[in-house]
Amino acid sequence: MKLHCARPALAAAFTTVGAAVPTRTPKEILRNVRIDAEGDSAVLSGTDSEVGVRVKLGGVTVERPGSTLLPAQRVQQILRELNDDTVHLELGPAPGAKGGEEPEENDAVWIRAGHSEFRLSPEDPAEFPPVADFEQDAYHTLSEGVLKGAIRRTLFATDTESTRYALGGVLVEVGSGENGGETVTFAATDSRRLAVVEAAASATGSPGTGPADGPVIPAKALGILDRVLGDADGEVFVTLRDNDVLCKAGDVVVSARLVEGRFPRYRQVIPAESKHTIEMVAGPFYSAVRQAQIVTSDETRGVDFTFEDGNLTLTSRAADVGASKIELPVPYDGEAFTITFDPRFVADFLKVLEPEATFTIGLNDPDSAAVLRTGGDYTYVIMPLSRDR
Amino acid sequence: MKLHCARPALAAAFTTVGAAVPTRTPKEILRNVRIDAEGDSAVLSGTDSEVGVRVKLGGVTVERPGSTLLPAQRVQQILRELNDDTVHLELGPAPGAKGGEEPEENDAVWIRAGHSEFRLSPEDPAEFPPVADFEQDAYHTLSEGVLKGAIRRTLFATDTESTRYALGGVLVEVGSGENGGETVTFAATDSRRLAVVEAAASATGSPGTGPADGPVIPAKALGILDRVLGDADGEVFVTLRDNDVLCKAGDVVVSARLVEGRFPRYRQVIPAESKHTIEMVAGPFYSAVRQAQIVTSDETRGVDFTFEDGNLTLTSRAADVGASKIELPVPYDGEAFTITFDPRFVADFLKVLEPEATFTIGLNDPDSAAVLRTGGDYTYVIMPLSRDR
Repeated sequence: MKLHCARPALAAAFTTVGAAVPTRTPKEILRNVRIDAEGDSAVLSGTDSEVGVRVKLGGVTVERPGSTLLPAQRVQQILRELNDDTVHLELGPAPGAKGGEEPEENDAVWIRAGHSEFRLSPEDPAEFPPVADFEQDAYHTLSEGVLKGAIRRTLFATDTESTRYALGGVLVEVGSGENGGETVTFAATDSRRLAVVEAAASATGSPGTGPADGPVIPAKALGILDRVLGDADGEVFVTLRDNDVLCKAGDVVVSARLVEGRFPRYRQVIPAESKHTIEMVAGPFYSAVRQAQIVTSDETRGVDFTFEDGNLTLTSRAADVGASKIELPVPYDGEAFTITFDPRFVADFLKVLEPEATFTIGLNDPDSAAVLRTGGDYTYVIMPLSRDR
Repeated sequence: MKLHCARPALAAAFTTVGAAVPTRTPKEILRNVRIDAEGDSAVLSGTDSEVGVRVKLGGVTVERPGSTLLPAQRVQQILRELNDDTVHLELGPAPGAKGGEEPEENDAVWIRAGHSEFRLSPEDPAEFPPVADFEQDAYHTLSEGVLKGAIRRTLFATDTESTRYALGGVLVEVGSGENGGETVTFAATDSRRLAVVEAAASATGSPGTGPADGPVIPAKALGILDRVLGDADGEVFVTLRDNDVLCKAGDVVVSARLVEGRFPRYRQVIPAESKHTIEMVAGPFYSAVRQAQIVTSDETRGVDFTFEDGNLTLTSRAADVGASKIELPVPYDGEAFTITFDPRFVADFLKVLEPEATFTIGLNDPDSAAVLRTGGDYTYVIMPLSRDR
């Protein structure tokens, strides 16, 4: 293998692929990025054997096609520290090997740029696990910005520490939508709160919808997708299969084995009706919640939310520390009503909204779930804390 | 105590004082910031009982003078999360205490702004250790920018982990300088490298110069001073006493107990003469050293620096990883010369220089200390690593 390419582009591709490379793993070989050079491009791939990322890098001058593995972390450092615009990669026999006798021996890889030369000892690409490419001709299409938004609004509600593995990912259900299109529903819960986003999609061919009990995409894969996706109008192609999911955005393919285990029947958790529905603005509410959060302790996490006379009052109290009272005008003139929440769960929802965004909070009684909605596409349910702490 | 003041100013003062407040300490009382209100100002002070910071905050409306302690971390959070321009502080009896009977009881402090109210349980200010004020009329004066530069160029060479306590600070020696002024010499070493900065100062009155065997200012105090000082032309007043040092910059006073133990006789470590003296530019050299550093390991830290034929070549090698070779043109045409350094120690020096700064590196032989100098005021000595590793 011998190639030349633009250093900033290779560095960016390495960073994208590097997101899948595990920093700690008993399988040393996974700490590498695989590079395959052919034609006028190079394909970089990395995986932790559950989640994989492939990037196709164009504009590469391939003098001699071939494949090798490169230690992810050190090569990222090298590409970051080099100053030159062009970088040269070459695989060949290590110095000291008898040239001519074994010209096929690929036990050294050189990275060169300007006056700098690095020689690394590559591992055998044949031992690297395969990283899936996107070769499907039937798939769902979502806009990049819409998918990114759906990930941001659900990912935080997953629980990757749970022994119920399905909580460690986001459920992705494809259903039929308006005008013959599709609706993709994203749902995540840690059993104390639930986030649900509906997004429009379209189908090409007759794409599958994953396993019958609902495909759950692992949090790590969505975190990588979030970084890969721009807010722009680009398109993402998604294929759901029985055991895995494949997403293609531009030159990047993210693949992941689906999470095993059954996702909770979340629809029945969403309150069908609310006795009180109050309109709120995200920014001022977020500020008030952050303030109320200061005077809480590990023992007394709860903040009381009291709606009364056109005001929402947040009160908190922690032994040995003190108390706080934060007021906020709200359009509510019903009877006084107090409900207690863990402020972190309220803050998580407010954090992903624009400060000027409006939403409604629907309440029934102090022991029943509250439902927060923005427009029609984002629903967030929080279980209150018991009032008689 | 009852006062009103601008929230951003109080928040900034709290952050400055907070730098001295220990996050972990067996003495709970030290986690507080003391506030004393009188006239039209408030004095905030914090200490870990070795290093103290006092800030005098003007423009305060004091309705009722007094003193209290406030939990540093929570109040910093409160001041950061509040949105209003003005904040109100009030010390008084906690709700539930019988008003009228014990009106002097100060067991609650209120922080109010806009629609927010926090009540905290303050501790007794009488139990807080004293934090020194600057009341001297004899002192040394340095420019803020010069002192900040001297700290940045020496502090990194201290060794706060050493059992030789004097290495955990910077030696500050006052001598006579040009035109009747003073020269203050700052020196720090961890015994493998030495950083020395000379700065001009002037004396007011007949200020002391600290203990006879040289005052050593603890690293923590200098780190706080670095943050407090601007690059500007302001002045800093410094008083060195037998056991402590006091520095006043604007409304901030930083005080510290001097480090005990004798600082090494550092002047004899600086090579008097160099066989080779080569002029270098900081930026390109720093880049080359960072590159060479990538292919090192915990076992083989050393990088070989070879000067030959107008080139400096940095070579490194690490078992199982590979090797690197970085070239840099340098004005050297003597015989080939190789010396081995720990690249971190070279990088530390280059990091505090402007990229376009020039300096000289003076070398004698591969086993003797190298001396790096910028202009006349900054000298840095590095011990080489043994060549026969």
